[in-house]
Amino acid sequence: MSLQAAPLRLSTASSTFEADFAARLHWSADTDAEIEQRVADILADVQRRGDAAVLEYTARFDGLNAPDLSALELRQDELKAAFDSLSDAQKHALQAAARRVRTYHEAQKKANGESWSYRDEDGTLLGQKVTPLDRVGIYVPGGKAAYPSSVLMNAIPAHVAGVEDIIMVVPTPRGEKNALVLAAAYVAGVHRAFTVGGAQAVAALAYGTATIPKVDKITGPGNAYVASAKKRVFGMVGIDMIAGPSEILVLADGSTPPEWVAMDLFSQAEHDELAQSILLCPDAAYIDAVQREIDRLLPEMPRQEIIARSLNGRGALILTRDMEEACAISNRIAPEHLEVSSRDPHRWEPLLKHAGAIFLGAYTSESLGDYCAGPNHVLPTSGTARFSSPLGVYDFQKRSSLIEVSEAGAQVLGKIAAELAYGEGLQGHARAAEMRLLKK
Amino acid sequence: MSLQAAPLRLSTASSTFEADFAARLHWSADTDAEIEQRVADILADVQRRGDAAVLEYTARFDGLNAPDLSALELRQDELKAAFDSLSDAQKHALQAAARRVRTYHEAQKKANGESWSYRDEDGTLLGQKVTPLDRVGIYVPGGKAAYPSSVLMNAIPAHVAGVEDIIMVVPTPRGEKNALVLAAAYVAGVHRAFTVGGAQAVAALAYGTATIPKVDKITGPGNAYVASAKKRVFGMVGIDMIAGPSEILVLADGSTPPEWVAMDLFSQAEHDELAQSILLCPDAAYIDAVQREIDRLLPEMPRQEIIARSLNGRGALILTRDMEEACAISNRIAPEHLEVSSRDPHRWEPLLKHAGAIFLGAYTSESLGDYCAGPNHVLPTSGTARFSSPLGVYDFQKRSSLIEVSEAGAQVLGKIAAELAYGEGLQGHARAAEMRLLKK
Repeated sequence: MSLQAAPLRLSTASSTFEADFAARLHWSADTDAEIEQRVADILADVQRRGDAAVLEYTARFDGLNAPDLSALELRQDELKAAFDSLSDAQKHALQAAARRVRTYHEAQKKANGESWSYRDEDGTLLGQKVTPLDRVGIYVPGGKAAYPSSVLMNAIPAHVAGVEDIIMVVPTPRGEKNALVLAAAYVAGVHRAFTVGGAQAVAALAYGTATIPKVDKITGPGNAYVASAKKRVFGMVGIDMIAGPSEILVLADGSTPPEWVAMDLFSQAEHDELAQSILLCPDAAYIDAVQREIDRLLPEMPRQEIIARSLNGRGALILTRDMEEACAISNRIAPEHLEVSSRDPHRWEPLLKHAGAIFLGAYTSESLGDYCAGPNHVLPTSGTARFSSPLGVYDFQKRSSLIEVSEAGAQVLGKIAAELAYGEGLQGHARAAEMRLLKK
Repeated sequence: MSLQAAPLRLSTASSTFEADFAARLHWSADTDAEIEQRVADILADVQRRGDAAVLEYTARFDGLNAPDLSALELRQDELKAAFDSLSDAQKHALQAAARRVRTYHEAQKKANGESWSYRDEDGTLLGQKVTPLDRVGIYVPGGKAAYPSSVLMNAIPAHVAGVEDIIMVVPTPRGEKNALVLAAAYVAGVHRAFTVGGAQAVAALAYGTATIPKVDKITGPGNAYVASAKKRVFGMVGIDMIAGPSEILVLADGSTPPEWVAMDLFSQAEHDELAQSILLCPDAAYIDAVQREIDRLLPEMPRQEIIARSLNGRGALILTRDMEEACAISNRIAPEHLEVSSRDPHRWEPLLKHAGAIFLGAYTSESLGDYCAGPNHVLPTSGTARFSSPLGVYDFQKRSSLIEVSEAGAQVLGKIAAELAYGEGLQGHARAAEMRLLKK
């Protein structure tokens, strides 16, 4: 019997919908206690022994032996050689994608990331200075999920922000290097790169070793060990979000060719059997048509087994009463990727409150956004779009408040501050404010 | 013998400066393993038993008994009554501070927090939609450090962002309520408030209970238990930074009255014996003058014992070669509060890369910023200004990327995306992009 991919069929009109829907969405971010303990031990060991510990773990976990850690640095000429080794089509695609990603993030910086200030009526200056981080670490997964596009998506916003020192770490199990990943590092302007990974790479970046410099922030996706390590070093360095499995939600009004939607669902499902692909649509006949396209297209897909496992285990085709209800359910899910596959996407977009990225209209397949439309593909997963944002230039900037109180301003503010400070029992604060009052 | 406060005297010209400086700065954010385990247990218990667990911990840790959790809700009329009970001077100060904080954060939203988009040459729309979080929790410490100003500084940016549901939690040991804190909640527009605290309050906000609604993000300072709990629920909900002890660094060129600087150092030291007050100055005679003012003013301070312990244990008066060197050292410290107590503060400000807030000129005492200048007083501590920012409107907003690829755009982007997707072995992505290519 051939492989089947049958996402769960649900209808919001069903009396069991809420329970079925909750069960299908359920995913726990809890980390295994054993992983947590092993990661804690690795972090402590790298903090204590530095280079030697990183070398040992790299030999043990990646099967990669080196005389010292500096032998695991990828020099710029090696990155360039990797780029030179690509086909012209690959070179062009990588450069074109990098250019579009850069243009988008430059617009983002201009729109939301510049310093600002104003003076109030007393001549007091108030504002914020926005500055880049000094040095950041970018974690790039190796092995089965080595994605050059992730290199672009992490390094380019850092570059646009003005970060002067971008350090990439990428595990190379048994020394196997991915030429596209190295080429992407070259195109994106990574400053230094090391072939180390896992919790030991996160530790090296967080604490610094003799060879790997301590960074201010670590971004980029990784496995459970990497995620646990990032969470543990958070506070000592900045981190981006902890990523869960990838998700797509397609809101369809039935106007898009059903094979396009089927393939968009596949493109999420093929990542990982835990990835989640959901279709919300008020048209039952259209849902049937998408299922038929799933059946037709699945045998053509090289990753059909992963796709089938993902769709069977976590996928859903949900019949809704109307598009408004579909939008409301989408807000409950707060999906990472949200396609509005509608003839009139701008009618629905204002109803959509929580999503990592919103892809409007039938031509906007998620895959265009994943690679080259310009916006970042590092997006909040597992409902965290309720409170977090795509990776962006802002993740590589920080702000300092600026305050310059004028003599006149100090007369007004000093009295307010002193009143409140005495109320809090902080007489030093009150006296400091009062000293600035002019004697009469 | 009377109490002495003698911050450590250092000189950058000394051969032992680096070691002495490092020793004085040292502070470990490591959490006690016992606290970690107790917090993990409390979180698990609240997740399992909800209201009942929160009630029990509140009875045990705060000595506050109630028949059910709803009895611990502070109703709006109780918040208003607290405001009405204040003196006119207190009412005026609270309202004036709130107004200034609101004005500043409105400017911040306008400068850096609005949605934006553009269309590229193919008609493809690219941008980001900026939206408020739905519901946030604000932790307000009770007991010895009950600060109404913190209520304003947390709630007002959330309000300005457009958060529709702001939930405050504040422990009230043995039922003692602080009228200023309740009044501040009223003035700041807190929507609901509960007199619970500790890890159990963080758990209730993160998981939701029958009575306390689940929030999307938790902000606000707390003790080691609260910090550990926030770190543990991070990922399930958003959190702000984990705060360490408060710090001030004063860069002085010798032009400010030395008693002003002495009192500014006190105003940090009086918070907590772990608070850190540092003066950097190229003028040895001026440093002597500040020490004389410390000696003169200390006996007048009600919190003199805390001030002395803080200055003796963690304070420093550092002689530098010049102001440029003082700026460079400040960047190494990345202080929470940075006063540029200079005749010409704008000469030095561009050299200052890392700081939570920069206070320019002699009139800008930190205490004015703490209460009412406008900028937020929740600032990155312990050197985290290297990678993080003051609490702001942006902490209560999130972003969704917007992408609408035109038919023409899909022809260009589809080929780039397909090339890269095949390179990554993701054929579903490639096929989804290719399906949007027009057949020729």
